[in-house]
Amino acid sequence: MYSGYIGKLIEELEKLPGIGNKSAERLAFHIIGMPKDRADKLSKAITEAKEHICYCSQCCTLTDREICSVCADEYRDHSTIMVVENSRDQAAYEKTGKYKGVYHVLHGAISPMLGIGPADIRLKELIVRLEGDVKEVIIATNPSLEGEATAMYISKLIKPTGIKVTRIASGVPVGGDLEYIDEVTLLRALDGRVEL
Amino acid sequence: MYSGYIGKLIEELEKLPGIGNKSAERLAFHIIGMPKDRADKLSKAITEAKEHICYCSQCCTLTDREICSVCADEYRDHSTIMVVENSRDQAAYEKTGKYKGVYHVLHGAISPMLGIGPADIRLKELIVRLEGDVKEVIIATNPSLEGEATAMYISKLIKPTGIKVTRIASGVPVGGDLEYIDEVTLLRALDGRVEL
Repeated sequence: MYSGYIGKLIEELEKLPGIGNKSAERLAFHIIGMPKDRADKLSKAITEAKEHICYCSQCCTLTDREICSVCADEYRDHSTIMVVENSRDQAAYEKTGKYKGVYHVLHGAISPMLGIGPADIRLKELIVRLEGDVKEVIIATNPSLEGEATAMYISKLIKPTGIKVTRIASGVPVGGDLEYIDEVTLLRALDGRVEL
Repeated sequence: MYSGYIGKLIEELEKLPGIGNKSAERLAFHIIGMPKDRADKLSKAITEAKEHICYCSQCCTLTDREICSVCADEYRDHSTIMVVENSRDQAAYEKTGKYKGVYHVLHGAISPMLGIGPADIRLKELIVRLEGDVKEVIIATNPSLEGEATAMYISKLIKPTGIKVTRIASGVPVGGDLEYIDEVTLLRALDGRVEL
């Protein structure tokens, strides 16, 4: 259909998540129509990100420094660690601008279905950090099957140390309409009700 | 929020059409998680496509050769030219596998609103081609305001030469449900009704 170089570009774009054949075509033609310096910038950003990004030696998030900006910030509360599944989840909480503790990024969740066990996520690194002055571990894995299993596993692992372990609340999202919320969430919101 | 290289990659990805902030983040983290050779392939595909793609000297479509594969194919009917707005529209007709003529890609449509006049699209190139042995020009610009205006303009331009000018049919799409089709299309389908 498409000649060599266009076809190759479409093929590569199609491999990205959430990009189907039509989107890949549209993106490819957009890229071909872009000024050369912008296309070069995009291409360079891909190579450079891939080259320079590593894991923070403390919280395991993706960063381009030895220690990420959150872990390096002395004004943050290093005795509170929020455990998240990935750097995007961390970024979501960072965007709120209200959380002042630090993070620990697992890079995954325990999933027997996919063959991902406790050893396949960054749990060892979390345990090592608990030897320091940690007062609370907030488990903020997703409220999915895998996320819940991971939360349970971590809580069982930490409890014996006497460190406080908490789990973020699960329920009806703010602005959500009860009519369109699934039953499991509705029941979870009921179970988690708080006194006013 | 994100450190330098991740931030830069997200920023570049966000500039692509149809890719918002969330998608750009997801893509960026996917790219960072990709094996290095795959990221390099993607980056290279972008640079190479941008470098090698030019316009076919006959039909003006995007290609990496002097003359595109359709124009170079001697088995195609070179006396029938289908005029399309862009290479993607051409590809859509090519996918049907049934059209045996050649194309002419305008790279745009006349749009007084956007200040795009007849001189801004590849019309001169079409007129030059009509001096050859052309029997029919099929106008397959989109059934939008701009596409229709372009079709009218081209038809008025070609009619005096005596060459047959046709327009692709506009109406209810196959598999479409009349209930969900807009009034203009319904009326167009009525006007264009054919005897059975």
